Amino acid sequence: MTDLEISQKAKLEKINVIAEKIGLTEDDYEQYGKYKAKVNLDVLERNADKKDGKLILVTAITPTPPGEGKSTVTVGLTQALNKFGYKSIAALREPSLGPVFGMKGGATGGGMSQVVPMEEINLHFTGDLHAISAAHNLISTCIDNHINHGNELDIDVNNITWKRVLDMNDRALRNIVIGLGGKINGIPRESSFQITVASEIMAIFCLAESITDLKNRIGEIVFGYNRKGEILKVKQLNVQGAAASLLKEAIKPNLVQTLENTPVFIHGGPFANIAHGCNSVLATKTALKLSDYVVTEAGFGADLGAEKFLDIKARKANLEPNVIVLVATVRALKHHGSNMDGNKDSIETLKKGMTNLEKHIENMQKYNVPLVVAINKFVTDTDEEIEEITKFCNKKGVEAALCEIWEKGGEGGKELVEKVMDAIEKNEKSKVKFSPLYDEKLPIKEKIEIICREIYGADGVKFMPKALNNIKKYTENGYDKLPICISKTQKSLSDNSNLLGRPEGFEVTINEVRLSAGAGFLVAMAGEIIDMPGLPKKTSAELIDIDDNGVITGLF
Amino acid sequence: MTDLEISQKAKLEKINVIAEKIGLTEDDYEQYGKYKAKVNLDVLERNADKKDGKLILVTAITPTPPGEGKSTVTVGLTQALNKFGYKSIAALREPSLGPVFGMKGGATGGGMSQVVPMEEINLHFTGDLHAISAAHNLISTCIDNHINHGNELDIDVNNITWKRVLDMNDRALRNIVIGLGGKINGIPRESSFQITVASEIMAIFCLAESITDLKNRIGEIVFGYNRKGEILKVKQLNVQGAAASLLKEAIKPNLVQTLENTPVFIHGGPFANIAHGCNSVLATKTALKLSDYVVTEAGFGADLGAEKFLDIKARKANLEPNVIVLVATVRALKHHGSNMDGNKDSIETLKKGMTNLEKHIENMQKYNVPLVVAINKFVTDTDEEIEEITKFCNKKGVEAALCEIWEKGGEGGKELVEKVMDAIEKNEKSKVKFSPLYDEKLPIKEKIEIICREIYGADGVKFMPKALNNIKKYTENGYDKLPICISKTQKSLSDNSNLLGRPEGFEVTINEVRLSAGAGFLVAMAGEIIDMPGLPKKTSAELIDIDDNGVITGLF
Repeated sequence: MTDLEISQKAKLEKINVIAEKIGLTEDDYEQYGKYKAKVNLDVLERNADKKDGKLILVTAITPTPPGEGKSTVTVGLTQALNKFGYKSIAALREPSLGPVFGMKGGATGGGMSQVVPMEEINLHFTGDLHAISAAHNLISTCIDNHINHGNELDIDVNNITWKRVLDMNDRALRNIVIGLGGKINGIPRESSFQITVASEIMAIFCLAESITDLKNRIGEIVFGYNRKGEILKVKQLNVQGAAASLLKEAIKPNLVQTLENTPVFIHGGPFANIAHGCNSVLATKTALKLSDYVVTEAGFGADLGAEKFLDIKARKANLEPNVIVLVATVRALKHHGSNMDGNKDSIETLKKGMTNLEKHIENMQKYNVPLVVAINKFVTDTDEEIEEITKFCNKKGVEAALCEIWEKGGEGGKELVEKVMDAIEKNEKSKVKFSPLYDEKLPIKEKIEIICREIYGADGVKFMPKALNNIKKYTENGYDKLPICISKTQKSLSDNSNLLGRPEGFEVTINEVRLSAGAGFLVAMAGEIIDMPGLPKKTSAELIDIDDNGVITGLF
Repeated sequence: MTDLEISQKAKLEKINVIAEKIGLTEDDYEQYGKYKAKVNLDVLERNADKKDGKLILVTAITPTPPGEGKSTVTVGLTQALNKFGYKSIAALREPSLGPVFGMKGGATGGGMSQVVPMEEINLHFTGDLHAISAAHNLISTCIDNHINHGNELDIDVNNITWKRVLDMNDRALRNIVIGLGGKINGIPRESSFQITVASEIMAIFCLAESITDLKNRIGEIVFGYNRKGEILKVKQLNVQGAAASLLKEAIKPNLVQTLENTPVFIHGGPFANIAHGCNSVLATKTALKLSDYVVTEAGFGADLGAEKFLDIKARKANLEPNVIVLVATVRALKHHGSNMDGNKDSIETLKKGMTNLEKHIENMQKYNVPLVVAINKFVTDTDEEIEEITKFCNKKGVEAALCEIWEKGGEGGKELVEKVMDAIEKNEKSKVKFSPLYDEKLPIKEKIEIICREIYGADGVKFMPKALNNIKKYTENGYDKLPICISKTQKSLSDNSNLLGRPEGFEVTINEVRLSAGAGFLVAMAGEIIDMPGLPKKTSAELIDIDDNGVITGLF
């Protein structure tokens, strides 16, 4: 059975039943169909004095292109926690249509560990990504409209950093010229579209703590420069109120359920390279008030998603992760051991690949948060392979748990639950407290260097002239105290996607630094990072169909 | 009080109460928040044998730029019908963000005749327009992706008629060059964005009678030509299933309420120039099954919206309008009488402008549907002015009713209800049956000529070479039996926006004919019609704000 077929056979509970399980009354949420709801923001306010639940962060080793099942483990773990007597909510990101129609498919887990209704969450859900696109493009439109009607702000058309967005893998929109066809059709200039999940509005949406915070952050966005080289903010266009109004409903966290009828928040979904890669602060915080254990996920490998979760989201939102679950698979470790010269399917290849896991373990240990490795079992994995990984982890002082949640759902996460609970308990006693990797008050270059050396294992960082100029400008304008969001390949710990395992003896090259003043971080561009993916020759879109009863097939 | 303030003070009933009023059970709809719902398509199927209610079409004389209150009269009339004992549902179009942030503002009526929640309907609603944009842009992306991956279909990059869409007045996207930056970023070509309401997907969405019909129509869309000049259809890209899947929820009609808690469907909203300008067939048909009187509206003046409603929508969907309500205002009649040389505020100007009303009355009488003129009263109108219009209508054999629904809500529509009921009753007895203006089997040129002569009052039609080529090509490909959708200015009965009143002695120029093979009509372009509007210097967006409780202000 495909994931979609499993999900369509699931016995869903009505969303009001799910809401009731976490103590919500009818006035606390808005139903969106029978199986989706949006939870009102005052639930968080009203529970302000209530003690937070424990926060479990799920991350992974450097992934292969199809991913290592981080979402599946996140969903499986929350199912397992509930099954074994611990009240738990999962907090996930919303899927983007780009991957849905591209190579990767949906983002609601897999096998017996899925969030449902799968097709609705993947295809339209409650329209949040669309609302974010509209808010983003309203600003874009108003920039060109301002230029067209006299350009009072003296916007430099060659120095507008704000693009347009679409939630689609549309390669042909990466480099465009707009405003052609004479004066009444705008002013010609080069521009670009990003995918919506790369929008700064998405990052802001996921870091905002209230509607007013959302609006103020949108106002603080730097969209470009005037011809004197001075920064220009969205509030100078005076459309932050309209942009925030477009997000009035979207900003409320979405409540859905797993195949085992346990509650899940799915809300916001910024890219894990150009942005910080985790669901909204509002969803995480609301979930922490409504349950004892919140399982959340950060995008790509731990060098990208977890680092940003810990150094940006957790720091900014004052969150304290109680345990980190690092997902590893035999497939990915072999990939790292093969060093790309074929798929050597041997225990030796696996052992060689273990260096990647090793580095991620060491990285996570730098944050003073206890760690458990979750071995996400594929049906082809042998006992010997699993044992090899377990032994390796134990040697590094870390517990490893075999996860059969893809095959068995929550039941398959028994060992993981036990080891996660042990780790939390031990940590409670030890009084070692989570701390971010670097002090955000350090100079920009220094912060970038710390991440590259400590997390990626680089010997050093090479700053290109453009990056140095950017850094100078941001420092002059008082934007130097922001945390760093490094945008680099997810395929390697380094900035070179060909370097598998645990690369050493390399330098990271920073080409450019971008300012996300509304989100509150600086994006350091390590290599060519595409903020608008493309589709493969054979798209997933061609497999998808719908019948007259609205039943969808072919989505994965 | 502004419209928004009135709407925010309204005592709304929960949407399940509204649904119950029209005989729906909980399984018949999906709630979207407390005051919005989507009605399942099986409601229509289940009631297939039930007799339809009466259909009331609201249209208007040639409008001034802010509009003559067609939506307000539509909402007021449905309120009035319910107040005076007739079960009625209104069926309206969904607002587009373009006008909301531009000059015109929202589209939910005004004063005491509004649909609520006003801000939600105008700003995000249930995300239908976004879903339509996504379905449209999926096709666009797949076209360029196909070219990029080898172009097996031999698509002629200079002859792709399918554009991209955004729901925004974004002038700078009217003429663009895409695919720049080298091979991995696509193939360079000229292209364009339309506003979403101008998308053929929107037109299809509003004409489809089921999900399968929707999917098949999307497959039939002609997106361009190969280098031999042969037509290319979306089904050759095989993404009609995915595009229809994106519309799975959107295709269900949205249920909301008026200020007086009467039911309203708001669903679909195609442009009334480049498309047919009325809400979805599914909403209209479902409403006809659930109530005795359905009040619906067609965009712009009767020469555009009503003509298309009658010759395209009613014909295709087998609908029989029982009465037409033609909205006139003193303001618009004076505008037509002033012939643009200042706003002469006299009874003479009003009398001179009456020629516009006269022509619209004559036009509507050609369809064998009884007609009532609704004088939408503004507070500045005098008794003398109202009497003048009434006398004029009576001389033309038509009843006129004074409408005070803006000021008084349903109560102000008493006279209109009486005259509408009289007209329906008289018509029932007379057995005169509605018939479209032309036979759709006539040659393309002839059909265009009939509309231009009969409805616009033109002496003839001038077909430019491009239009003649188009007609030849469509005829060769068997697309000549489709009805015609003329795209022309809404500001005049002619194709010249400066000609007010009842223009005579003019020719209509057809520059181009476009094929909407999925929607099932041919668009004849009379003059320069913009399918992507622009924003004014002072946008409405700048007035809009939101506070920490999510209360929006400044929307109109």
